[in-house]
Amino acid sequence: MANRKKDKDNSKRINQEKNDSVNQDKATFNISKYKNFSEWYTEILKKAEIVDIRYNIKGFLVHQPWSVLAVEKMYRQIEKALQKKGHLPYFFPTLIPESNLKKEASHISKFTPEVFWVTHGGNTKFEERLALRPTSETAFYQMFSLWIRSYKDLPFKTYQRAQVFRHDTKATRPLLRDREFYWIESHCAHATEKDAINQVREDMETTKEVLHDIFGLPFIFFERPIWDKFPGAARTFAADVLNPDGKLVQQPSTHLISREFSKAFDVKFKDKDSKEKYAFLTCYGPAISRILASVIIVHGDNKGLKFPWHIAPKQVVITTIGNDKLTKNKAEQLKQRLEEAGVDTIIDNSDARPGEKFYFWEMKGVPLRIELGKNEIKSKTLMIFRRDINKKDKINESELIEYIKKTSKQYNDNLFKSADDLFKDRIVDAKSPEEAKAAIETGKIARCNFCSTNSDGIQCAEIVEKEINAEVRGTKFEKEKPKGNCVFCKKPAKEVVYIGRSY
Amino acid sequence: MANRKKDKDNSKRINQEKNDSVNQDKATFNISKYKNFSEWYTEILKKAEIVDIRYNIKGFLVHQPWSVLAVEKMYRQIEKALQKKGHLPYFFPTLIPESNLKKEASHISKFTPEVFWVTHGGNTKFEERLALRPTSETAFYQMFSLWIRSYKDLPFKTYQRAQVFRHDTKATRPLLRDREFYWIESHCAHATEKDAINQVREDMETTKEVLHDIFGLPFIFFERPIWDKFPGAARTFAADVLNPDGKLVQQPSTHLISREFSKAFDVKFKDKDSKEKYAFLTCYGPAISRILASVIIVHGDNKGLKFPWHIAPKQVVITTIGNDKLTKNKAEQLKQRLEEAGVDTIIDNSDARPGEKFYFWEMKGVPLRIELGKNEIKSKTLMIFRRDINKKDKINESELIEYIKKTSKQYNDNLFKSADDLFKDRIVDAKSPEEAKAAIETGKIARCNFCSTNSDGIQCAEIVEKEINAEVRGTKFEKEKPKGNCVFCKKPAKEVVYIGRSY
Repeated sequence: MANRKKDKDNSKRINQEKNDSVNQDKATFNISKYKNFSEWYTEILKKAEIVDIRYNIKGFLVHQPWSVLAVEKMYRQIEKALQKKGHLPYFFPTLIPESNLKKEASHISKFTPEVFWVTHGGNTKFEERLALRPTSETAFYQMFSLWIRSYKDLPFKTYQRAQVFRHDTKATRPLLRDREFYWIESHCAHATEKDAINQVREDMETTKEVLHDIFGLPFIFFERPIWDKFPGAARTFAADVLNPDGKLVQQPSTHLISREFSKAFDVKFKDKDSKEKYAFLTCYGPAISRILASVIIVHGDNKGLKFPWHIAPKQVVITTIGNDKLTKNKAEQLKQRLEEAGVDTIIDNSDARPGEKFYFWEMKGVPLRIELGKNEIKSKTLMIFRRDINKKDKINESELIEYIKKTSKQYNDNLFKSADDLFKDRIVDAKSPEEAKAAIETGKIARCNFCSTNSDGIQCAEIVEKEINAEVRGTKFEKEKPKGNCVFCKKPAKEVVYIGRSY
Repeated sequence: MANRKKDKDNSKRINQEKNDSVNQDKATFNISKYKNFSEWYTEILKKAEIVDIRYNIKGFLVHQPWSVLAVEKMYRQIEKALQKKGHLPYFFPTLIPESNLKKEASHISKFTPEVFWVTHGGNTKFEERLALRPTSETAFYQMFSLWIRSYKDLPFKTYQRAQVFRHDTKATRPLLRDREFYWIESHCAHATEKDAINQVREDMETTKEVLHDIFGLPFIFFERPIWDKFPGAARTFAADVLNPDGKLVQQPSTHLISREFSKAFDVKFKDKDSKEKYAFLTCYGPAISRILASVIIVHGDNKGLKFPWHIAPKQVVITTIGNDKLTKNKAEQLKQRLEEAGVDTIIDNSDARPGEKFYFWEMKGVPLRIELGKNEIKSKTLMIFRRDINKKDKINESELIEYIKKTSKQYNDNLFKSADDLFKDRIVDAKSPEEAKAAIETGKIARCNFCSTNSDGIQCAEIVEKEINAEVRGTKFEKEKPKGNCVFCKKPAKEVVYIGRSY
């Protein structure tokens, strides 16, 4: 009974979504992602009901079920990977006293202009303003100083899932730059700098294991130039994902935190030699909202979304052809079998025409669709549509679970291969500012000899910004050796950098 | 390799926790929950590292891993139950404009004095103040009015997992009354009042299915008197859980929202008869932090915590006796087998003495402990300690998974039976104020004939408060018929009410 009720509700919700689509006079989604990327992105968020941007505070979104179901799966995948590596989960308060933020100078100078300030509780004005956390170093570290005593406590590896709030002055853009966004922040303390660097390396591996191997996102990790570091970091490493319009999107970054922080927050430990020492701190921040944006952008096509298997809100949709009791019961039966095998399934037994149902669920990015009618029931076969290759397979009903197991793997392989191809031939060696500019303007990334990513390189970075309208994204973690002079100032090059445009 | 590293980290964390315990000069926890409830509660939160109350904003806690792991499991259970019943998940913004809160008078009058107000973004003062959500009716309903068009869209069943913020003037108490707490809020719209009442009934069922049948919490659902309704509700129903000190803790409440709300937010639909009608709204709010408090309080004993099986942060601990390679490897092997069978397992291969390890994990409330040493490995047997009955079973290693399956069920049964016994003989029929007072003062609940739970009963409710220092908690959902007069004013009784003390 409970089950039957559920599907009534599901199909009602589906109807509602379908009605909306029909109301908008478009039963099908068809926008060229490559030619009209901006329109494609805006429209698919609306049409697939990912987020509703009509909430009445600028930069704050309502995440609809199709987002939340994916986001929760993304959280689970990242948290599993972190826990496997010994990180333990915490929940820290959403609010941080202003005095905490003020303890470290570079941190406050970057974040203060972006802080949402809480000043009153009811009618009481607080003596000290409270920040909606823009990031939580200054909350974690004060507790680290209470919790960490000895080298035996290190490494101390934590994380929390949380929202952060930034009153960013740049233009907001749904999921890519919101004023409230969903993320994980991992904060760690180590006994030595070497351990800290190894943590950074581990964070990069985690990024590959999850973002690439499960979410199918190709990226390059760069060490950011000194002028583009996280405020309070000694070194910043960040993954750049490529958009079809050639722009780069910064995804997880991991930081070697400056020693000022452990001093400011008194994060000390008694080492083996019985001496008190300041800990080495690192942090790592995968922003789930923004990763969802990349998943949508990288995998989608002109017909709509394509979700990677493991984070698809629903992995299989059963669309009924005809709404007789037999078909409905059969759909229910199949769903139960699939769910028992761990496959997230939804039934569409609405009154819409089969064609409409097909387009709708393709647009929503459901990997596999089972088309179920009397013929299939009679012949004990199933017609299954694959969103990856736009083809149908006919299988025996008895083979269903085996087919799903095999096909879900192939489906991911296909999605990921196309995604990986994005970076193919995208990196162009540029020997002059003109060559760099030409590369950038055709949606590519320019690799150049560059004077320096320390402060003595800022002038050339400004030239890149002004004349090419692009940014020095940084150097590879395993540094490449430049041969020759800086492409811009002609002084001897100390680095090989990558230049691109970003959001 | 990854696995081995993990256990190194685990055991390091364990060591740290153990060192703390030893530092506090108490390898064992031993406080009488019944005699010194307040001390017991404060100490176990600290000792088991559930929450750290030393964060520097009053009423804001740091949830430590032992809380987060349980809380996440609690979320999953409640969300699963809600999704099964057709609720779909949303994430709404943390902030709500003041004008939204002002749209409904009773709502604003209750919540305004408790709102944390955001007034600035960076240096910019907002034209309108933004509230940290104290609850989200006024955020959801404005979107409902955009999303709901027709009777076909109804019922519209949603929920979100979220934190809420209340600058409560009452004394804060960890997990029971925090200024930021974790909850789920479910908001629904219905076509008829009957559907809305059925939703309230369904919410009460959900509460039973999860809070009682999975978390093992016994409770009674009361309809609250009119003076104790949720602000903005037409009718309020709430579950009261009993503490060992005789006090009641309000757990999930479900509300029939007043029609003023759908009017204020223009939540309308076109009915079958083509007429525009205002929807009937309901909301349901299980507060996870507070439910965790009840789980701790109801199931714990003088030795510490006892977690119900399905929400135990770890279900099995393997404590090694001796730290030779053979034992460590065997522990690893067993853990892998258990995790493959879906059992959350932790290894304690620290250098602590076996007795210390035993006490420590009993205090943490892990249901089963496997004691593993050379003898066990040689004889291919396992010694398993059960936290529910404080006894050890010796089993053949080959039977492990089967044993766990069977025993986890028995374990829950034992826990839940003791919990259910809490309410046994707790309800006393009181025929006079003196009898009611005597009942309350021995930690019981008084059942009385009572004049009225409408506004004409307020005077008697005040007598209850002043003279008995207790509260009228309300009437049963399926109303009982009173025979005779009100115990307090002697007028004819319209209701049978339950009187108790609460936090």
